[in-house]
Amino acid sequence: MNLSDRTQLRRLPKRGSHETEAIHQILDAGFLAHVGFCVDGQPFVIPTLFGRAKESQSEKLYMHGSAASRMLRELDTGVPACVTVTLVDGLVLARSAFHHSMNYRSVVAFGTARRIDDPEQKTQALRVISDHLIAGRWNEVREPTEKELKATAVLEFAIEEASAKVRTGPPLDDEEDYALKVWAGVLPLEIRTGSPIADDRLPHGIDAPAYVRQYRNGTHTK
Amino acid sequence: MNLSDRTQLRRLPKRGSHETEAIHQILDAGFLAHVGFCVDGQPFVIPTLFGRAKESQSEKLYMHGSAASRMLRELDTGVPACVTVTLVDGLVLARSAFHHSMNYRSVVAFGTARRIDDPEQKTQALRVISDHLIAGRWNEVREPTEKELKATAVLEFAIEEASAKVRTGPPLDDEEDYALKVWAGVLPLEIRTGSPIADDRLPHGIDAPAYVRQYRNGTHTK
Repeated sequence: MNLSDRTQLRRLPKRGSHETEAIHQILDAGFLAHVGFCVDGQPFVIPTLFGRAKESQSEKLYMHGSAASRMLRELDTGVPACVTVTLVDGLVLARSAFHHSMNYRSVVAFGTARRIDDPEQKTQALRVISDHLIAGRWNEVREPTEKELKATAVLEFAIEEASAKVRTGPPLDDEEDYALKVWAGVLPLEIRTGSPIADDRLPHGIDAPAYVRQYRNGTHTK
Repeated sequence: MNLSDRTQLRRLPKRGSHETEAIHQILDAGFLAHVGFCVDGQPFVIPTLFGRAKESQSEKLYMHGSAASRMLRELDTGVPACVTVTLVDGLVLARSAFHHSMNYRSVVAFGTARRIDDPEQKTQALRVISDHLIAGRWNEVREPTEKELKATAVLEFAIEEASAKVRTGPPLDDEEDYALKVWAGVLPLEIRTGSPIADDRLPHGIDAPAYVRQYRNGTHTK
């Protein structure tokens, strides 16, 4: 995995249904996006949680932040944005330094964001983000008040073009290097959960719910 | 974790030694960067491996890719770039939807990249990337040939300004919400390794070395 893997971005190709499906799967398996935008030629790349609506064909992503945030205000002026989601699956250890790589899945999506003002649509979008992150949680917690909604900026990012990049499988070495006496293969990497840490102020007798104990990043899509 | 967490980017403050140390620790604990740059007002955010030189005060990051990559060529014209490294530590599950968050560590770094042309410096930079990703590997593998070096573009990104953001600890709820009968706390998340998968063409009797079996993302910095 390196910067050269993405020369296809040059073309921004029309997507077939197969690639569309791959893009949705990667987006749904991730929860962290890196959002890029330019201010006077200066790029900013900001990590943020995001959600995609459950409808399988939705090309809209939702993000949120404080209404006071300058970042949010930059984005809601309709400037071009880039939303990138990357899932790391393993280190690819080849026999030569040159052929080292990474197994990963990533989506680079281009589009523009707009601010959602309607309180009901805003609540709905926040629910999409919550469900995307940890399905089951929204139903248990206190919903946002009117005041909290006002303090929250919610952006809808409509994907105009996107491409997926995926690398899987073993290292690919030069033929003559296979004779080298060096271990080669893949070291799998994944995000895993630890044991839930209950808040100190939690009343006695409230156990972590199943959707927390059995949480798996991306399981809602597999 | 949301877009509003980073309003401090507005200021791009002068860093104290404490923040500098925090920035270096986060960079050294990560291996994946999201690199942003602008082409005619269009932002691009590209995931890539990176390395930071071992000297504790180094403010230089290295990235590499194919010499044919348009992305690399954009960056080596000296345009402003943004390199963001994000480590996810856990989901923060509050009693209200509004106070949900994420425990994380992130660095947003601004600067410009330049291409390294000298073959020795190039090799050295590739070694920095390799050591950053998996210390011990470089010594075992075949080093790049002159031809491979020519096919590889290596960028040095000099950090001009950077800021770190860290969230740790339990959810912070509104006082009246602590009475709600809903589980609250933190679900820790971390990147873990699976068992190394040996390449099918590996000769019999070559075991995975200790630096692979005992690999821990970021351990070289802790």
